[in-house]
Amino acid sequence: MSKKTAINPTREQNYPEWYQQVIHTANLAENSPVRGCMIIKPYGYTIWENMQRILDQEFKKTGHVNAYFPLLIPLSYIEKEAEHVSGFAKECAVVTHHRLEEKDGKLIPEGKLEEPYVIRPTSETIIGESYSRWVQSYRDLPILINQWANVMRWEMRTRMFLRTSEFLWQEGHTAHATKEEAIEETHKMLKVYEEFAENVMAMPVIAGEKTADERFPGALQTFTIEAMMQDGKALQSGTSHFLGQNFAKASDIKFSDKDGELKYAWTTSWGVSTRLIGGLIMTHSDDNGLVLPPKLAPHQIVIIPIYKNNAEKEEILAKCKELQAALNIEYYNHSNITVKIDDRDLTSGERTWQAIKTGVPIRIELGPRDLAKKQVCMTRRDKEPKDKEFISFDDLINNASNILDDIQNSLFNKAKAFLDKNTHHVESLDELKKFFKKDSSSGFVCCYSTNELEEEHLELLKKLKISARCIPNKYKKDLGNCIFTNKPNCNKIIFAKAY
Amino acid sequence: MSKKTAINPTREQNYPEWYQQVIHTANLAENSPVRGCMIIKPYGYTIWENMQRILDQEFKKTGHVNAYFPLLIPLSYIEKEAEHVSGFAKECAVVTHHRLEEKDGKLIPEGKLEEPYVIRPTSETIIGESYSRWVQSYRDLPILINQWANVMRWEMRTRMFLRTSEFLWQEGHTAHATKEEAIEETHKMLKVYEEFAENVMAMPVIAGEKTADERFPGALQTFTIEAMMQDGKALQSGTSHFLGQNFAKASDIKFSDKDGELKYAWTTSWGVSTRLIGGLIMTHSDDNGLVLPPKLAPHQIVIIPIYKNNAEKEEILAKCKELQAALNIEYYNHSNITVKIDDRDLTSGERTWQAIKTGVPIRIELGPRDLAKKQVCMTRRDKEPKDKEFISFDDLINNASNILDDIQNSLFNKAKAFLDKNTHHVESLDELKKFFKKDSSSGFVCCYSTNELEEEHLELLKKLKISARCIPNKYKKDLGNCIFTNKPNCNKIIFAKAY
Repeated sequence: MSKKTAINPTREQNYPEWYQQVIHTANLAENSPVRGCMIIKPYGYTIWENMQRILDQEFKKTGHVNAYFPLLIPLSYIEKEAEHVSGFAKECAVVTHHRLEEKDGKLIPEGKLEEPYVIRPTSETIIGESYSRWVQSYRDLPILINQWANVMRWEMRTRMFLRTSEFLWQEGHTAHATKEEAIEETHKMLKVYEEFAENVMAMPVIAGEKTADERFPGALQTFTIEAMMQDGKALQSGTSHFLGQNFAKASDIKFSDKDGELKYAWTTSWGVSTRLIGGLIMTHSDDNGLVLPPKLAPHQIVIIPIYKNNAEKEEILAKCKELQAALNIEYYNHSNITVKIDDRDLTSGERTWQAIKTGVPIRIELGPRDLAKKQVCMTRRDKEPKDKEFISFDDLINNASNILDDIQNSLFNKAKAFLDKNTHHVESLDELKKFFKKDSSSGFVCCYSTNELEEEHLELLKKLKISARCIPNKYKKDLGNCIFTNKPNCNKIIFAKAY
Repeated sequence: MSKKTAINPTREQNYPEWYQQVIHTANLAENSPVRGCMIIKPYGYTIWENMQRILDQEFKKTGHVNAYFPLLIPLSYIEKEAEHVSGFAKECAVVTHHRLEEKDGKLIPEGKLEEPYVIRPTSETIIGESYSRWVQSYRDLPILINQWANVMRWEMRTRMFLRTSEFLWQEGHTAHATKEEAIEETHKMLKVYEEFAENVMAMPVIAGEKTADERFPGALQTFTIEAMMQDGKALQSGTSHFLGQNFAKASDIKFSDKDGELKYAWTTSWGVSTRLIGGLIMTHSDDNGLVLPPKLAPHQIVIIPIYKNNAEKEEILAKCKELQAALNIEYYNHSNITVKIDDRDLTSGERTWQAIKTGVPIRIELGPRDLAKKQVCMTRRDKEPKDKEFISFDDLINNASNILDDIQNSLFNKAKAFLDKNTHHVESLDELKKFFKKDSSSGFVCCYSTNELEEEHLELLKKLKISARCIPNKYKKDLGNCIFTNKPNCNKIIFAKAY
């Protein structure tokens, strides 16, 4: 007989359905009646707020400021950048009218616009228009601006957090006087993403450069962090683009340089989105539901009071509140440990399972016998539900911060071991084909490969349902013969199925 | 000869143009090429971030959580609430297609949607749909959710911050088991707005209830805070709506109560927007530009180093940095005083005027003579530019927080005196007409009035270009004969021209 789990189906039984169930059970989000759009529920939104707060501080530390640009983009703006058009402008929400009129109780679109607008799928073109007005001289550069916003792409197949028509994100858009400075910015922001993924989300990533076929439309170079989900698929989790002078030319961002010459600026853009929450879920969660790294959890600790009568209740609850106050100590990023007392009219088992399914890092049970012994019963979300530990009040208070760090590290290490174990280095095309043809195979394949494959091999990738994820930075100097073409001096490239 | 001012025209010469110039000169925002939409520039956006942070804390303290709902609303949702339709659904952005196709280098809308969507002008209907699914039992109530979002209304005449097609706001949407609880919520949130306006923005407001004609479409009661701008016009700055069961019925938000009966929930909604920044500007700014209350200023202090040569420069700059570090002390709402050193290659006069025009509360000049005397030259934005004060390093550091409080209070007191002076209590319709017919008159008129005027008197208000702003809470018990109809037992109502 198989083990009883809180989430059904399990990962092994049906991974995509398991993912939906984890989200549903933890009350993170739900599909909305608006096609392809989700509703981010309070518990899920709090995770996003935590991500935003920490990332925003990093952006500001690296010299960026926030601003806000219009939601709607005139079609003529998108037409300006040819590559961008063909890559981006296909599936998006088009605003064509500006009025509704009532006819027989129905509302009819009226007031046709002379020039339609699209809801921004990304803002390079509309922000570029501003920069072209703001930049005159080299003294006006660099411009280092970020925007927190909603964007929309009319996606055909959607999956909550991972791919939705509307999503929330941040988009950095910078303009520089020199190529070198713009490239440095591109790398710097990828580093911010890499460190956020690994140190805050406890999600190991492979940082690297996209191959030519996988670049952002209009970019000269696209850098990415790629994470491995528990089904072995890749999740592109953040990108940073060196746009060269392409968008500056399309938007006419020119400046007079120190030497008096009129030059085009060099621009970058970079972004992460609510997709990160999907990555977070699929990196750590298990068959009992959500597992959250302490640094992003809405609350790090839940206290479950246990009592049988009113006399006990009063005493126990008083102690719980005392512990809650004592645990309100500095933890991470200027925030304190947050402790929730779950005193709902449910059995202690129900409350415990609720905490497990919502991924709370530390669960504390406190009953009359514990109170007498000045201890609590502690369980950790990164261990088995039955792995209980009794710990004195004082030790809990003194060590809470360390225990949370330990959970954070154990989640990262577990995910890192999984990533390493499932990254396969292969030496030949046959090996690659064999790997991805097996149904049981999962993970990344790393091999020497040219970064501009010909039609024949692109077709093969398609047939295998895989794509080039990135040229890992860490193997940048490791060159060899392409397994597809035998061309020498090729980089190692990661291939994988991907979300 | 008239006094030289940094902003031209002055308030007296041309108030609306003065307003635009203050925004332009302080680099707060600009009009965008997208009809009716503005670009909020970094300096302006920082003020919004400060407002958001403080308000968000208040929402959370009062038990609310944040969530995110779709940007697009199906037309059928708006059709459900009849009053809401006629009040709201007229001018809005309508999405009718989901694809662009290229034809001769032009992009053409394709993929016509079966049911068009509007970009949310407000989210009662789409959020109501969720609540109808989330609420089953009285145990699921109350729901206390807030959303920070962009919204869109196709405005014909726009003015930056005050009225733009797209704007940023927060919208609280709550559902309750009882009428009393919902009404209490409505009042509680109006109080949050009132205190924020007065204590944080230093903008005195009159809190009260809207008359029947001025209610939010579909609401049973609308409460408002009304501020007086320096031209005497009213600015509706925040509203809180008791929606009764109207939206619950339209959206089918039902719950089984403790008594086993199936009942409709009672809902509220409340919001403030980037319009508050317009109110902030028009409450405090003067003919030299922006004036910011310290609690919302992006930086509270600017230090302007003054030196003639490199030897002086090194010494002076070192001291400036020392002061900057020493002034990094706790100030308001868990934030520290923020100090900017303006060391740009401009004359000290230019840098001083830059600080004046951008509304920095405290300006500090530090030159070689000051350094020798261990003092700085301090000027305050709430006083005349020439009103200098020499203050020792130690006194500056020890008193900075108090000086900022003093500036905050002086701004509030000045605005409060203006509001009081320009609020006129009248006893007859003739007096009211006489007041608003004079071109030189400005301000609010307060008089006994029925809150449901007949056509004839509504026409009169229209002719006078005024509207009923609110029934002030503070006069709630002061009853008398309506000056329009002579009906007895009427409340006092504020009438004014309004933005």
